[in-house]
Amino acid sequence: MSEIQPSVSYSFTMRLYIENKPGMLAKVLEAIAEQKADPGAVDVVKVEGKYKVRDLTVSARNEEHSKAIVKAVKKIDGIKVRNVSDRVFLLHLGGKIRIKNKVPVNTRDSLSMAYTPGVGRVCEAIAEKPEKAHTLTIKQNSVAVVSDGSAVLGLGNIGPEAAMPVMEGKAMLFKEFADIDAYPICLDTQDVDEIISAVKWMSPGFGGVNLEDIGAPRCFEIEERLKEILDVPVFHDDQHGTAVVTLAATINALKVTDKNMEDLRIVIVGAGAAGIAITRILLEAGAEEVLVCDREGIINRDRIDDYDASKVWLAENTNPNNETGSLMDATEGSDLLIGVSGPGIVPRKAVEHMADDPIIFALANPVPEIQPEEIHSIARIIATGRSDYPNQINNVLAFPGLFRGALDARAKDINEEMKLAAAHAIANSIDDNDISESYIVPSVFNKKVVPKVAKAVKEAAYKSGVADRPRPLNGD
Amino acid sequence: MSEIQPSVSYSFTMRLYIENKPGMLAKVLEAIAEQKADPGAVDVVKVEGKYKVRDLTVSARNEEHSKAIVKAVKKIDGIKVRNVSDRVFLLHLGGKIRIKNKVPVNTRDSLSMAYTPGVGRVCEAIAEKPEKAHTLTIKQNSVAVVSDGSAVLGLGNIGPEAAMPVMEGKAMLFKEFADIDAYPICLDTQDVDEIISAVKWMSPGFGGVNLEDIGAPRCFEIEERLKEILDVPVFHDDQHGTAVVTLAATINALKVTDKNMEDLRIVIVGAGAAGIAITRILLEAGAEEVLVCDREGIINRDRIDDYDASKVWLAENTNPNNETGSLMDATEGSDLLIGVSGPGIVPRKAVEHMADDPIIFALANPVPEIQPEEIHSIARIIATGRSDYPNQINNVLAFPGLFRGALDARAKDINEEMKLAAAHAIANSIDDNDISESYIVPSVFNKKVVPKVAKAVKEAAYKSGVADRPRPLNGD
Repeated sequence: MSEIQPSVSYSFTMRLYIENKPGMLAKVLEAIAEQKADPGAVDVVKVEGKYKVRDLTVSARNEEHSKAIVKAVKKIDGIKVRNVSDRVFLLHLGGKIRIKNKVPVNTRDSLSMAYTPGVGRVCEAIAEKPEKAHTLTIKQNSVAVVSDGSAVLGLGNIGPEAAMPVMEGKAMLFKEFADIDAYPICLDTQDVDEIISAVKWMSPGFGGVNLEDIGAPRCFEIEERLKEILDVPVFHDDQHGTAVVTLAATINALKVTDKNMEDLRIVIVGAGAAGIAITRILLEAGAEEVLVCDREGIINRDRIDDYDASKVWLAENTNPNNETGSLMDATEGSDLLIGVSGPGIVPRKAVEHMADDPIIFALANPVPEIQPEEIHSIARIIATGRSDYPNQINNVLAFPGLFRGALDARAKDINEEMKLAAAHAIANSIDDNDISESYIVPSVFNKKVVPKVAKAVKEAAYKSGVADRPRPLNGD
Repeated sequence: MSEIQPSVSYSFTMRLYIENKPGMLAKVLEAIAEQKADPGAVDVVKVEGKYKVRDLTVSARNEEHSKAIVKAVKKIDGIKVRNVSDRVFLLHLGGKIRIKNKVPVNTRDSLSMAYTPGVGRVCEAIAEKPEKAHTLTIKQNSVAVVSDGSAVLGLGNIGPEAAMPVMEGKAMLFKEFADIDAYPICLDTQDVDEIISAVKWMSPGFGGVNLEDIGAPRCFEIEERLKEILDVPVFHDDQHGTAVVTLAATINALKVTDKNMEDLRIVIVGAGAAGIAITRILLEAGAEEVLVCDREGIINRDRIDDYDASKVWLAENTNPNNETGSLMDATEGSDLLIGVSGPGIVPRKAVEHMADDPIIFALANPVPEIQPEEIHSIARIIATGRSDYPNQINNVLAFPGLFRGALDARAKDINEEMKLAAAHAIANSIDDNDISESYIVPSVFNKKVVPKVAKAVKEAAYKSGVADRPRPLNGD
């Protein structure tokens, strides 16, 4: 295992009262260095009597590490630590998003136009033609980020209140990456029918619904039924966002290894929401031999009576030769191994007996199915879900552009054609000449990605007949 | 009836191609003056060949008037009208509110703090102590503006999509007047139980719920049951907002007329949501003789078998002498007449036989129960819901400060004490020396009102025991 590095996720600011003597700050920095922590900004706040007051920001590895650092600094003679504030909590204080008015309503005239009486005519226009809501209200650009708090990050079923910071963060990403106005709605129910009703009832003002962190298998039924009921896109990001970026990474990995999708033997470790969605999109993209492993081994048609609906689907649509056996049996001679399960599930041996030029996507987060360091010498290409290794498979490459394209086309759905288009657009964001073992997916901060994805998705929406927005003559 | 004046609610911009000859613009302005319309800004866009291209903004009285103006301008030789755009619709295009990120998420560090992995620690903190959602998420400052679109302005049951522009406008007012982040949720159901379920399920991320434009009598049950279920304030503005401002106006009207609340004979015309809420708050404020009239006349205990629940309450709590008869019987000798019904319902005769110094609040909008011009000579004080007469009873004086105070105190409810406090704060926003017949309510743009109301409401929340936020030692 590689050592965990200090990170801003565990950064804090100490207010230090430092005696006005030479070399005092150096002592502080030395103590921090001894703790293997990262010092950041040092600001002088003021001078008070014999003390210089400074705010010093430090990145630690985790909370214990933070405490050890503070303790070490406190030990220094002539230094007082007066206040330690956690930077992550400070950032979240009061929430992370705000409402902003498009125009001020601070005069009689603006009030009369944005609100009563002027607004009445706009309401009447929509009452006559409800589709005008798409142009005259925020529906044009709004997405509900909906969670029941049942499967939040790696934290599990922490409930709707505790899920809010994630959904707010997601709304921030929608804004930052695609200028979409997303609003977090965390539901006080985990019942499938109730979630579906809640989303249906609150849907009129939203141009799309992004489902998030809803546990399997409930997430499948919720998404499926909502897609049927609503005439705006419904998209479960944990499934399809991951699937789209995984396909993009696969497309570019095949360019590096000069292999074809239809010839691949692909093993997917993990039969949860992401595993199923990845399986589905790879099959649609032309993959023919996909083996999915759950805890019992390869999913096959002999075990079909033990399966729930989603595994029955997997049994019927994967594993063409109805192979049985363990993960080790599956990986033998395989070209691509995709882990969407848990930390350390895949042993090095499994990679050792893969085909030539093995491709491994170990996506469990924060600890992958196998540490990249273990297989650097034998794997041709490695991708993870982490930002501190090359090839990060990150949903933020997909969902902003997908929804941007869908909203721009006023699509009634995000369908398979649109997802495939998104994957190809992400893959094509890297010039073929630049693609390499350590560069199969673009950076999340690559500004080309979202517009490229949005354009491809919009085009696919029109071609597949789900776009409701009349197409301007210039084709824009 | 006073003539309706041109208004920005019916303003539009014409793009004019005007031949380069002297006196042409004057001809246009003359034509507009002949139509009794208000010309606004004239901008030169460009010069094209023999034409000067100008954008001219005009305020009209209504849509027919707009058409007549355009027609008149088109008739002028040497003028071409190329484009007419409705300014109100332009303002609403794409919706009126946006999401704004508190910090940018455009670097690896900011992403790690606002989203994964940093956000995980914040989620865990809330999972351990759910009340931390009030400080670490948008719940601290967010209000859901919820409507089912069943009783929107004077337009009636126009449905959830058509209600959106009003709810967006309401969200703008929350932002502009009280820096509250409100989000419009228009529900695709008008069933009482379903509305209650929808609001309950989506409530975890909201610090308050403002119900809006939900028809009576459903609004009563919805508000009542939601107040029981939720531990954040639930407030039906059409009822209580109007009631609070009406009480404020009454308080100041009594100062002008030197009368006392407990001596008043008050007649309320209209037994809908607003009428009931006004009755309730006036009784709480000390009124003893309140008569409420519906279409059949004075609500009394002889008719109790014909009544629904809300009218039974009125019969049992008003009309101390159990009077019967018509509106005319009620108004005889009355001091204060409050109309919350429909246009022209109150005849001049009803005012003629009121007590000395009659006070009339004719709140039907846009056409009051009686036109102020008709009773100028006999009424001491007149208030309406309109902005073009003195003494506008406008909810925007109440709800921003009420919610501001409630959120600041982290109140579990907006209770009667808080509403009374708000009414007194609104009334006290005008110095006693400045109060007069034509100045009993402050302007909606009076910057003193919201902070004053918020402070009084917060104080009342603490005093009445519904404030959950630990009180800082400095009493702020």
